[in-house]
Amino acid sequence: MAEGELVTDFKKLLTDTAAEVEEMLDQLLRVEKVPEARLVEAMRYGTLNGGKRVRPFLVVATSQLFGVARLCALRTAVAIEMVHCYSLIHDDLPAMDNDDLRRGKPTCHKQFDEATAILAGDALVTKAFEVLGQGQTHSDPQVRCELVVALAGAAGHEGMCGGQMLDLIAETTPLDVPGISRLQRLKTGKLIAVSCEAGAILGKAPAPVRLALSAFAHDIGLAFQIVDDILDVEGDEKDVGKKTKKDAAAGKATFVSLLGVERARSQADLLKGQAIAHLDSFGEKAEPLRDLAHFIVERKN
Amino acid sequence: MAEGELVTDFKKLLTDTAAEVEEMLDQLLRVEKVPEARLVEAMRYGTLNGGKRVRPFLVVATSQLFGVARLCALRTAVAIEMVHCYSLIHDDLPAMDNDDLRRGKPTCHKQFDEATAILAGDALVTKAFEVLGQGQTHSDPQVRCELVVALAGAAGHEGMCGGQMLDLIAETTPLDVPGISRLQRLKTGKLIAVSCEAGAILGKAPAPVRLALSAFAHDIGLAFQIVDDILDVEGDEKDVGKKTKKDAAAGKATFVSLLGVERARSQADLLKGQAIAHLDSFGEKAEPLRDLAHFIVERKN
Repeated sequence: MAEGELVTDFKKLLTDTAAEVEEMLDQLLRVEKVPEARLVEAMRYGTLNGGKRVRPFLVVATSQLFGVARLCALRTAVAIEMVHCYSLIHDDLPAMDNDDLRRGKPTCHKQFDEATAILAGDALVTKAFEVLGQGQTHSDPQVRCELVVALAGAAGHEGMCGGQMLDLIAETTPLDVPGISRLQRLKTGKLIAVSCEAGAILGKAPAPVRLALSAFAHDIGLAFQIVDDILDVEGDEKDVGKKTKKDAAAGKATFVSLLGVERARSQADLLKGQAIAHLDSFGEKAEPLRDLAHFIVERKN
Repeated sequence: MAEGELVTDFKKLLTDTAAEVEEMLDQLLRVEKVPEARLVEAMRYGTLNGGKRVRPFLVVATSQLFGVARLCALRTAVAIEMVHCYSLIHDDLPAMDNDDLRRGKPTCHKQFDEATAILAGDALVTKAFEVLGQGQTHSDPQVRCELVVALAGAAGHEGMCGGQMLDLIAETTPLDVPGISRLQRLKTGKLIAVSCEAGAILGKAPAPVRLALSAFAHDIGLAFQIVDDILDVEGDEKDVGKKTKKDAAAGKATFVSLLGVERARSQADLLKGQAIAHLDSFGEKAEPLRDLAHFIVERKN
């Protein structure tokens, strides 16, 4: 297959998976005729917004390595995406990054109001754990508990929330490369890692297999962040769909400000190759994961 | 035993349980030497603050009806208390109720800052589900999943978050008595109910037993809110430990503004009697729950 076709096929796979994820989100977040319906409307606004759905894709693609049922994979994917989306809603708040624009549309607190946006985030993270705990996600409750504990670990104070705290601290205390790597690992890396591990948990894969997927996730997570930093400097606001040059304006250290664009770019390429090498034992089945690694490093938004 | 002694014994039981809960919270929220330690400090500030621990008490007291191991009961109690505390941190935020004082001390965003308070709440709700999902909470993963799903249902958009949304809507759309009852049921009632059901879930009690505890919880939950409204009107700011007369100042309808203090008071008494009647089948073992019903209605803060 020619390179162009491969990219086209992969993009179709990513889009098709995103469509399935949106359908499941739509099903799980129904607006009922209740006086507080505005809350679910805000939850839907913050999730059904045309994201790339990279994390759900990772859940689905790793689940396929172990023959996990589609419904189980999708429900898990949606739970993780709810956590990702809630974090964006809260990160955009005036007290945090104070962003007006997200994926080219008003942020949740701009479209609704601050209080509603805070509650929508709160309700989304709560819903994520409900989805994971429910029987439809996997017939074995031990698997569901493992998913709950893994997601909580990745999203809480030792994961995403801790990373966001570090990001706030970084506004006044510039970080060095190890500091930024830690920030990235906590803020985005662990949620990407749990997205990859989810397939292995659902498929009850042995520990070494889980470790290989963690290692893959670690590399693409870091590559993802480096490319984000590059796009923040080089990207066009219209393409990227959010404000660019933010980090420089805020005086924040990034991989680009510390390494320069060229070294950052080659670091991302190196991580891509390393990530793909972790997939060797999975053969053909891991092709979508390899394609994703290329996609993450080569994307323009 | 004379009435006075009974009250003294109950207060000691409540205080002793609160101490066990604080110890468990302290264990589960350790400050590590990490650059983002401020986040855990804020989580501790928002939880280790001398609350009455009514919800944990309900978990422990209902667990005792079924001979549940102390550790299982306490971990579940602490998870529910984390959710309660996170909701207070977020409710106090400037975008929500904008409170400076909580239990006589600066609120979390006053002590730290808004962003840290938002993240502390986020990390606490996440930690709650992690605790419930972990093996130490119960040896049967099916029980742990039930706890996760029950807590999420009580805390999410169909429970506490939905109730807080209604509360915000009530600022501009005055509610009638059924409307306020709905608000109370969602905002505080469901979390109190899940605290009572938790013992039954941990003890694998049959459905009718669970229903009796739900009914008890429903009545004391409503009584609790009515007494809160009365204290907001009649209570002394120093005793109550937070700003009083807030609802009247905000022009919010409450049980007191709609029913008057006297009818509200007799409604609370009626609910107390009704709650206690639901405990008939449990005999002596339910004495702490009966005492709690008295305590809730007769408390001064």
